[in-house]
Amino acid sequence: MNLTILGCYAATPRTITNPTSQVLEMKNQMFLIDCGEGTQVQLRKHKIKFSRINHVFISHLHGDHFYGLIGLISTFSLLSRQNDLHVYGPKGIKEVTLLQLKLSGSWTSYNLYFHELDSKESQIVFEDDKVVVSTIPLKHRVYTNGYLFQEKTGDRKLNLNAVMNHNIDTCYYNKIKSGSDMTMEDGTVIPNEELTFDPIAPKSYAFCSDTVYDETIVTLIRDVDVLYHESTFLEADEQYCEMTMHCTAKQAAKIALLANAKHLVLGHYSTRYGSIEPFKEEAKTVFENVELADDGKVFEF
Amino acid sequence: MNLTILGCYAATPRTITNPTSQVLEMKNQMFLIDCGEGTQVQLRKHKIKFSRINHVFISHLHGDHFYGLIGLISTFSLLSRQNDLHVYGPKGIKEVTLLQLKLSGSWTSYNLYFHELDSKESQIVFEDDKVVVSTIPLKHRVYTNGYLFQEKTGDRKLNLNAVMNHNIDTCYYNKIKSGSDMTMEDGTVIPNEELTFDPIAPKSYAFCSDTVYDETIVTLIRDVDVLYHESTFLEADEQYCEMTMHCTAKQAAKIALLANAKHLVLGHYSTRYGSIEPFKEEAKTVFENVELADDGKVFEF
Repeated sequence: MNLTILGCYAATPRTITNPTSQVLEMKNQMFLIDCGEGTQVQLRKHKIKFSRINHVFISHLHGDHFYGLIGLISTFSLLSRQNDLHVYGPKGIKEVTLLQLKLSGSWTSYNLYFHELDSKESQIVFEDDKVVVSTIPLKHRVYTNGYLFQEKTGDRKLNLNAVMNHNIDTCYYNKIKSGSDMTMEDGTVIPNEELTFDPIAPKSYAFCSDTVYDETIVTLIRDVDVLYHESTFLEADEQYCEMTMHCTAKQAAKIALLANAKHLVLGHYSTRYGSIEPFKEEAKTVFENVELADDGKVFEF
Repeated sequence: MNLTILGCYAATPRTITNPTSQVLEMKNQMFLIDCGEGTQVQLRKHKIKFSRINHVFISHLHGDHFYGLIGLISTFSLLSRQNDLHVYGPKGIKEVTLLQLKLSGSWTSYNLYFHELDSKESQIVFEDDKVVVSTIPLKHRVYTNGYLFQEKTGDRKLNLNAVMNHNIDTCYYNKIKSGSDMTMEDGTVIPNEELTFDPIAPKSYAFCSDTVYDETIVTLIRDVDVLYHESTFLEADEQYCEMTMHCTAKQAAKIALLANAKHLVLGHYSTRYGSIEPFKEEAKTVFENVELADDGKVFEF
């Protein structure tokens, strides 16, 4: 699992910082999360192949999280994309995208599917044999969802020495990997745990931006491997959190602690600050394992 | 009069090139012409003060000419802009902008006026005491206008030696500058041309993008000082012009020649070409005074 930060600053794009967008690579899928203005250029800059992006998850319809979507959709068409594209986001995202395409006399060269969200409860929005994605309802000034990406538990790993010592035919391997015990021709049963190792532990990633401090999300993200949580403000500016419905770095750290997350990645910094280091320092007073997102940074977990 | 090219490449924004947007400074007004994705970042990069932009002219609703508009409008609000903003563009531009603002639960901190266009005839869209802007109907795949920016003829320049030799009181200066002859106390009439010099010749700028080769625009832009004309293709690719409704550099030069323009600035290059120099070479076979637009280039005329 790796995470490429294309942009992680709040409000307005600038020459040196980009609004929210990131790519999560999980089980060979590339999931695009949020799509602020300029995302397509950031994708090019970081050499992420457009053709590998088939699912785009939009948290909410503030400009710094989705004004780059229509440009990306259009560019995919100009490049004659053929693969289906799925867009998940708040109700309204389809209407505004189709209106823009209509006004430009354009259509897509590929099937474009919208999965519009309006539920206030967590729901599964994507599932295949390896990954499941569900929403994390967040509290912000407009309807907003974070997203929880979870790998499914894979097959058990074959203990090759053990199966060969028992002269087990290769035709049984898949059955054993899926967890079955092995019954030999003489009736002896070899328990599965003698023939396999535990599968690689499935990983999980929670994207929580934008939101006010909200402990109700903790149950949804409990024990998550990596929590990306917004931290728009430093503690000295905490008074802005309530009005803008954003968080401080310390509040993000409290959520990480309550949820028993393994790693916390901070982002969505207000552009008022000259340096982002103080975000880490403040969060570390609450939670040890803190990383700072920054544009272009790639995390491997 | 000066012209800052923020972006002048066709189709999709890339790491090194930007879609169409430019700023024309004329008589101390800054006119923003087209607004592709990333325009607000280009404005920052070229240190153009947001507060000086009060009028935005959009040629057509293809993404590479207007997907940056909503971001700019939003950023102006986030920066608590107070000045009115006027947006000129094809019918539909108001609906899509307001829908985007509505979906983000946003409103502008300033008055935002839309001047929607649907006429196929040239019309005046802006006029003050120094400048007049009219549309140049263009032929493209969707409803498109170029824009003609014309300075008005200013006051005549006072010949200070002459007025002082005649002992003319300063209270008559404004009347003389506006073109009146001077009647002295003894009844003598001094003709205006003895007391003044011609005013600075008013300048004009025509923005013509995107369009197929179309000689009907020539009467609208005759004798223009600077013609910016799209040249998406080189001659070897002329076969794409009809389908895409674009021009070659040579066709742009023909329009400049027919219109008796003083300068031709080429732009809107297809991103298929490694170098833009051949555009100049090809245009120069038809019209001498050719310049190449390029992102970040500033022309003074």
